[in-house]
Amino acid sequence: MTTTLPAKVIFDTDPGVDDAMALLFLHRHPAIELLGITTVHGNASIDTTTRNACYLAERFAIEVPIAQGAREPLALPKSAPPAMVHGDDGLGNVGQSFTPSREPDPRPAYRWIIDTVRAHPGEVTLVAVGPLTNLGLALKEDPAIAELVKAVVIMGGAFGVDGQGGNVTPAAEANIHGDPLAADLVFTAPWPVTAVGLDVTHRVLMRNADFARLRDQGGEDGEFMWAISRHYVDFYSQREAIDGCYVHDSSAVAYVIDPSLFTLRSGPVRAVCDGLAMGQTLQRPDDRDFPPGDWDGHPSQRVCVDVDAERLLALFLDTFIDAERSRD
Amino acid sequence: MTTTLPAKVIFDTDPGVDDAMALLFLHRHPAIELLGITTVHGNASIDTTTRNACYLAERFAIEVPIAQGAREPLALPKSAPPAMVHGDDGLGNVGQSFTPSREPDPRPAYRWIIDTVRAHPGEVTLVAVGPLTNLGLALKEDPAIAELVKAVVIMGGAFGVDGQGGNVTPAAEANIHGDPLAADLVFTAPWPVTAVGLDVTHRVLMRNADFARLRDQGGEDGEFMWAISRHYVDFYSQREAIDGCYVHDSSAVAYVIDPSLFTLRSGPVRAVCDGLAMGQTLQRPDDRDFPPGDWDGHPSQRVCVDVDAERLLALFLDTFIDAERSRD
Repeated sequence: MTTTLPAKVIFDTDPGVDDAMALLFLHRHPAIELLGITTVHGNASIDTTTRNACYLAERFAIEVPIAQGAREPLALPKSAPPAMVHGDDGLGNVGQSFTPSREPDPRPAYRWIIDTVRAHPGEVTLVAVGPLTNLGLALKEDPAIAELVKAVVIMGGAFGVDGQGGNVTPAAEANIHGDPLAADLVFTAPWPVTAVGLDVTHRVLMRNADFARLRDQGGEDGEFMWAISRHYVDFYSQREAIDGCYVHDSSAVAYVIDPSLFTLRSGPVRAVCDGLAMGQTLQRPDDRDFPPGDWDGHPSQRVCVDVDAERLLALFLDTFIDAERSRD
Repeated sequence: MTTTLPAKVIFDTDPGVDDAMALLFLHRHPAIELLGITTVHGNASIDTTTRNACYLAERFAIEVPIAQGAREPLALPKSAPPAMVHGDDGLGNVGQSFTPSREPDPRPAYRWIIDTVRAHPGEVTLVAVGPLTNLGLALKEDPAIAELVKAVVIMGGAFGVDGQGGNVTPAAEANIHGDPLAADLVFTAPWPVTAVGLDVTHRVLMRNADFARLRDQGGEDGEFMWAISRHYVDFYSQREAIDGCYVHDSSAVAYVIDPSLFTLRSGPVRAVCDGLAMGQTLQRPDDRDFPPGDWDGHPSQRVCVDVDAERLLALFLDTFIDAERSRD
């Protein structure tokens, strides 16, 4: 619990199973004031992720605007969404029949982000857990917003900490690979970015027993999280031989709530935009010395290099189980 | 000590301070039969590295052919040699007055490599500790030699083990950065390659006390190693805040003598040939699952991911100090 004002957050998301959990985490935690939801291509097509966002907002009674975002990356042909991870419907194949009554805002996501940042200068934290296309478009349309945003927290990247490579290629993590040019724009803009990448999210394992606790003690929303996560957990259990799944998107939310959960490393970050290493994120740590190169003149950003996984999981689970108890 | 026949080695090198030590290590160790020395651009210009190779062979009484190799990389403009590391003369600024009487073989290095491999089919190990231009040229000229070489052992690359990035950029190690196209040819050819990269060489620290032992108990050659290493050690001591220097090239020699010093990881390896990550080496480990990609269809190679540094240093030092004692 914090005694300061809640953080005003715009959630840029491609729901997505773990996006749905991260959205509920943002909505439930008292340290967060959710201003709105913007959608992006990624875990499924933009039509599906927008439909899912509308459905989830309705289901969770989240009364904030939703703005539909980019259909494809800035410079690349869109690759096929990873149905094997999130299901054909982006929600573990249990959401096909969801027909939300909510409609998104008429503005495109990047415009809605610009307007909202300008309405709350210096106050907005952008939490982006999909490809960074909307943030890239907002920067291209109105570069001055970089100075008006309080912070940017992304789930994305793989920085080679402990040998952590990518998950879609040996070099690249999926969100950055989904729009590397947008990622490079975001990392090199003059706003403070923190990357919560695979280096730390692969250390936060949510076990099936944790999901069962959510199901049994987390009320309707807990049961829903159990249901949508079955396909996702099966995918990870088989591919990675783990009992559960990694906590990707909710780790970025946890950073906003309690940055002390993480150890950070500072230095300019670039994203590789083509070739063999496309989608790779590379940081030049501030405490290391290199000849002149492509990192020069870019702002120092923060990369998470370690995490207190146990405390993060407790923060996540307690948010749902305490909240549920307090309703009894 | 081994009871099998000595390994027939061609040493492809850009002397270079640690190249000089590695050459002496190859010459002195009974498990090695040195067939010849080929030179390459890298730590200094090709004229300097060839002059140094001739001088070193004469000084150490190494009676094998020397062939001069490539002046510049396959596809890139040659960048300036790193005089701050190896000195203007490539030998710690103590070699300016060295004027060897030996002359190199009239054949270019790649041709000498092809002829020698064909003269000893299935028997030759190529130990390459500079940019891989000569090996790339040999493969281009006569691709069939890949099937005739016993093994290729390179000092090069940085594979992100324990977060190990490059030394000339956050992504790239100097030898691969010096000719990434040649490196990609070498890694993807159908011969067995083992990469001894920064991931392990940065764990093998030779202290000034070790150099002093060489100087005091290693005879003339030990005194010479002390003299040429002063500039090199000063560079590393200042840049990396260590008391001594890392053992790069001699670690590749140690692998040939005793591979049990190292832990290996298998999988195809590619080198990034342009852009931000140019010179980076990326392995797709055989035990990890990825969508189809640029590693498909290429041979599985070996990357060193751990090393018994203490035992490696003992192997190196004992080779000189025992040999010296046995002369007394």
